[in-house]
Amino acid sequence: MTNFNVILFENYEPLDVFGPIEVIGKLDKLYKIEFFSENGGIVRCSQNIRIETLSLAQMPEIGVLFIPGGFGTRKEVFNNNLIRFLANKARAATYVLTVCTGSALLAKTGVLDQIRATSNKLAFDWVVQQNEKVKWIRKARWVQDGKFYSSSGISAGIDMTLGFVNDTVGNEMAEKIAKGFEYIWNKDKDNDPFC
Amino acid sequence: MTNFNVILFENYEPLDVFGPIEVIGKLDKLYKIEFFSENGGIVRCSQNIRIETLSLAQMPEIGVLFIPGGFGTRKEVFNNNLIRFLANKARAATYVLTVCTGSALLAKTGVLDQIRATSNKLAFDWVVQQNEKVKWIRKARWVQDGKFYSSSGISAGIDMTLGFVNDTVGNEMAEKIAKGFEYIWNKDKDNDPFC
Repeated sequence: MTNFNVILFENYEPLDVFGPIEVIGKLDKLYKIEFFSENGGIVRCSQNIRIETLSLAQMPEIGVLFIPGGFGTRKEVFNNNLIRFLANKARAATYVLTVCTGSALLAKTGVLDQIRATSNKLAFDWVVQQNEKVKWIRKARWVQDGKFYSSSGISAGIDMTLGFVNDTVGNEMAEKIAKGFEYIWNKDKDNDPFC
Repeated sequence: MTNFNVILFENYEPLDVFGPIEVIGKLDKLYKIEFFSENGGIVRCSQNIRIETLSLAQMPEIGVLFIPGGFGTRKEVFNNNLIRFLANKARAATYVLTVCTGSALLAKTGVLDQIRATSNKLAFDWVVQQNEKVKWIRKARWVQDGKFYSSSGISAGIDMTLGFVNDTVGNEMAEKIAKGFEYIWNKDKDNDPFC
């Protein structure tokens, strides 16, 4: 099994995480999902969800790296320890997936320089300010560039993750998962009704 | 603030919970969200999400009751302690919301007898078997009957919860929340493409 390493921080946006994780969890025995935060332990969000996490030091070297967004990113872009950690892990990762303003954190690491990426439409200008060397795409449900997948706001993360499954496992599996949870999949990554 | 009491059990379906909770969390200061399980402590699901919960004994008497589905319901329908607890809380609740096979648990309590309700399409026959006195509606994205809201599978819970906001707070708020998380809301509760 490949490690699917999810980064959490105080005030992440829960649906950014649990929509995509719902999809990944349906890929039986393909991924080992685990949640990590800077110091481990319980991580909270504004919806009062308290998740138990491992510490960053416990994260396996290799795997997929997943970074959600949320208001917490406004603080975490200044967290040099986290940004340095993400830079190393993003370089080593087989794939890096970001949802919403998670791409702002990844942009801060420098690994997205000259790479195409997107983010939440309501926070787009702030995201661009974090690193103008990224080739930011404003109109996109999600963007894939090499091993980097970035999605627009919150629920777009589900569409992107189904797109990731489509690209890496196959269309049949992506369609089966979407049907299994009665989800109306926006399959066209360029179809962005919120831009 | 009104209490919004979420029931968790081993192997609940995470998106059943966190989609709706994402919506409810946007109703600033209207609801106090809390998570409860039979004995409290950490509750796990197949996606390895470990949530900290309070025990059923700690649940406030009054509030909204929220029951998700998932494979865990196959076991919990035989958990007399939980079913008895849900019966009491459902009678006292101002509203009761179920997602997916959560309606099977609620049906077991008897409070849905002669009430219209729906559930996951892939598990529908099993759900009906739990209590045939419920007026089960097979074709529905979600169903509202009095204070009871029940939704179809997994992602339909998001549409239902936006419908609940629409009915109890107003259309403007429901639209604002859907737009805020770039979600393509299926607003028509009778529009069920998965039946």
